[in-house]
Amino acid sequence: MSTPQNASYTITLRVHIPNSPGMLGKLATCIGDRGGSIGAIDLVDAGPDHLVRDMTVDVQDERHAERIARAVREIEGVDLISVSDKVFLLHLGGKLSITPKEQIQTRETLSRAYIPGVNRVASSIHDHPRTVFNLTIKSNTIALVTDGSSVLDLGDIGPEAALPVMEGKAMLFKELGGVDAFPICLGTRDAESFVQAVKAIAPTFGGVCLEAVSAPRCHEIEERLIEELDIPVFDDNQHGTAVVVLAALLNAAKVVHKELEDMKIAVAGTGAGGLACVKLLLAAGVREIVTCDSAGIVFDGRLENTTPSKLWLAEHTNHEGLRGGILEAAEGADAFIGVSAPRALPLEALKRMEADPIVFALADPMPEIDPLEASRFARIVATGRSDLPNQISDLLCVPGLFRGALDIRAARINDAMKLAAAHAIAGVIQIGQLCEEYILPSVFNREVPSRVADAVARAAIDTEVARRRRPMKDRQRDEVPMYSI
Amino acid sequence: MSTPQNASYTITLRVHIPNSPGMLGKLATCIGDRGGSIGAIDLVDAGPDHLVRDMTVDVQDERHAERIARAVREIEGVDLISVSDKVFLLHLGGKLSITPKEQIQTRETLSRAYIPGVNRVASSIHDHPRTVFNLTIKSNTIALVTDGSSVLDLGDIGPEAALPVMEGKAMLFKELGGVDAFPICLGTRDAESFVQAVKAIAPTFGGVCLEAVSAPRCHEIEERLIEELDIPVFDDNQHGTAVVVLAALLNAAKVVHKELEDMKIAVAGTGAGGLACVKLLLAAGVREIVTCDSAGIVFDGRLENTTPSKLWLAEHTNHEGLRGGILEAAEGADAFIGVSAPRALPLEALKRMEADPIVFALADPMPEIDPLEASRFARIVATGRSDLPNQISDLLCVPGLFRGALDIRAARINDAMKLAAAHAIAGVIQIGQLCEEYILPSVFNREVPSRVADAVARAAIDTEVARRRRPMKDRQRDEVPMYSI
Repeated sequence: MSTPQNASYTITLRVHIPNSPGMLGKLATCIGDRGGSIGAIDLVDAGPDHLVRDMTVDVQDERHAERIARAVREIEGVDLISVSDKVFLLHLGGKLSITPKEQIQTRETLSRAYIPGVNRVASSIHDHPRTVFNLTIKSNTIALVTDGSSVLDLGDIGPEAALPVMEGKAMLFKELGGVDAFPICLGTRDAESFVQAVKAIAPTFGGVCLEAVSAPRCHEIEERLIEELDIPVFDDNQHGTAVVVLAALLNAAKVVHKELEDMKIAVAGTGAGGLACVKLLLAAGVREIVTCDSAGIVFDGRLENTTPSKLWLAEHTNHEGLRGGILEAAEGADAFIGVSAPRALPLEALKRMEADPIVFALADPMPEIDPLEASRFARIVATGRSDLPNQISDLLCVPGLFRGALDIRAARINDAMKLAAAHAIAGVIQIGQLCEEYILPSVFNREVPSRVADAVARAAIDTEVARRRRPMKDRQRDEVPMYSI
Repeated sequence: MSTPQNASYTITLRVHIPNSPGMLGKLATCIGDRGGSIGAIDLVDAGPDHLVRDMTVDVQDERHAERIARAVREIEGVDLISVSDKVFLLHLGGKLSITPKEQIQTRETLSRAYIPGVNRVASSIHDHPRTVFNLTIKSNTIALVTDGSSVLDLGDIGPEAALPVMEGKAMLFKELGGVDAFPICLGTRDAESFVQAVKAIAPTFGGVCLEAVSAPRCHEIEERLIEELDIPVFDDNQHGTAVVVLAALLNAAKVVHKELEDMKIAVAGTGAGGLACVKLLLAAGVREIVTCDSAGIVFDGRLENTTPSKLWLAEHTNHEGLRGGILEAAEGADAFIGVSAPRALPLEALKRMEADPIVFALADPMPEIDPLEASRFARIVATGRSDLPNQISDLLCVPGLFRGALDIRAARINDAMKLAAAHAIAGVIQIGQLCEEYILPSVFNREVPSRVADAVARAAIDTEVARRRRPMKDRQRDEVPMYSI
């Protein structure tokens, strides 16, 4: 299976051609012959003996675009200057704008928003440090921090190349959660400098969402920042997925009429994502978990391939001391959760599972098992893919989670808040609607972030990490800002 | 003189009062008797025996507000919970929003702005690092960096209290220059950590504007960042004012029919601002400068009160080896520039100056000499105040300067660009309009930033710090973004 092209694919070819009759016809024929559908043709530059034209062409996919570009390049006299497409046009100049909430066009507004009016606001914050959460962007702004060391399908591409991805994520934070998220791409690979940089810039922000930081550094970085900052710090790649996996499992259990506490769960993958899943499942009440990595089942006393994470897993899972490979791990399991590598799960393993197998295959873009194949044996299949039912996406979790944490001015994000988020996501689907192919709502379901935010805020209050008595809704003016004169 | 209140002054008193007849009347009378004009009265909360009300009251100024608040607090049974005003309401929740340029409401936009479409953009940047300037917010976004150690009239108030000031500045960057500026308030006081933090976050930004960093740290920080980053770094407090001082001097010289090269200029103040002014004046062709500080004229060989800055000044100014105090410095000077302290310039000094004295008294909010007094002897007077003619404000320089630097993708901001900015600001005023009370345009004159940007971009090209052949105007689409397939 290859990822289908969701976005319509339109390219623009910029060509430098001789200014001679018949040249455009030759070009058009070449493109048309190869199945390209020509749209607008713009003249960019003209000289006595040359023209520069932009030709917009609808194509099927990237390979089709390549074929056409190659053919155009081979026409004698044609210089193909560049090929661009709609996706690139969307990203041109970046995807975020920093917008003043009020325009400053008169001296009066200037004197309120800036000098001298702002001096009173600054003094108030200096005298009453907590008011920074009321009177500045800290109230609603989080830092979306990465070093670009582990970006989605792309791996270690560095901070600059990670920036468009972070901008996209920031757009989604705003769109889904009303959260102002600003991308901070760090040009450092050292965990210590990473931590120091985030601590240094923290005064501007009400929260920190870590993204795409490679393991095992991500653990140390997250732990230290949680410890050393007084605002919520949350590693999306570890916990965002874990929360949604739990949400999916809660609903899947309802479909197959099982109780979480009685299920045996096999987890393939002991990286940052796998570890976070296991920890949250244990916190949610799951009692029997077996994990395995490329060396097989993780058990207490295993000598190969040990890391601090695996030692932790050996101690907290597999109480029966199972040994073996993925087939043995799957034996009698009610659910299989893959956060590992493409094709890690043989079909054979599914046959060894308990009745009504639940399979979450999250390796991206190629799942642990072909989802269509898997559905022949599994009762419920979920993946990370948007083009199949039951997409497990962190987007169901993080915008609402930070919305709730900011509303209640949480000092941190604890397990109770993560569990609350998972239950809220699961709860969006009514019992009557719940079925094998619908255990998770769509990322565009607007109910999700608001229910997650409410649940997270309540959990923060109950566990005493909230610094407000009740959530401050966006733009809600029921509390006049205060200062003492 | 006290700063006049530009902004109309409306306060809201939140009071907790007994729920008993006559109570509101008592309150209203108390406020009215003291000259407060009552507007809206809102009920915020009500109990069986208490009410919480918000009373909006127009007052004359802060002291008037305090008088009323004090009187209200003294009414028996009244608990004054808070006092807020329009200025605070404007700042509530912060003054900046991070806005997606495109909404993500369908799976198709999602697949272009985020996964999977963004993967191609990220790969392109990874393969061709320079495209980060085309395809991300780096193209138009600068970091507005402070540690809050030297904020305007307020001094060392720290990063949190500096945030509303930085937000105001960011609004002005957008409003005047179309530049996306994001406030980075650093919770560190160590120059080394400051530099490391800014270097770490640099990948997101196309420039760095330093604000309100105290001397002498600001010199080291700026120098190191210029050296170690490949994007423009500019300390607004040092150079922003210097550029506008030069612009004002260029026009003042025209009014009094003198040539810059022949003028003798006395500068009071050898701090970061004074040093930057002197350096830029020298670069502009001024030959005779005398500086003085609280210990008197700076001369080569002076032993008191030496710093690296003063040693530099001793070497590069005062070629005649003048000694003495501010009166001796002013002797025969054509212009006096004060970047020092309130009331540092005695009226007597003005009498010793050359014919048609030019006086720039920039100490804020209290100038070196009462501007009205000074105007009895000086032909031209300029200050930093917005309520008097000839306001020397860095806002005339920085938005346009960064606009130009970003448009041409400058690697740094050099003296040629600063000089070009000064000439552009001065050039906005036509010779026919130029007069003693109009040597600088208003900060709201829209011609200023666009002329500054153009001039700065041209200077960057001429001095080969530009990384584009011609400026990229905001949203100009004459160049299609490129990638190779």
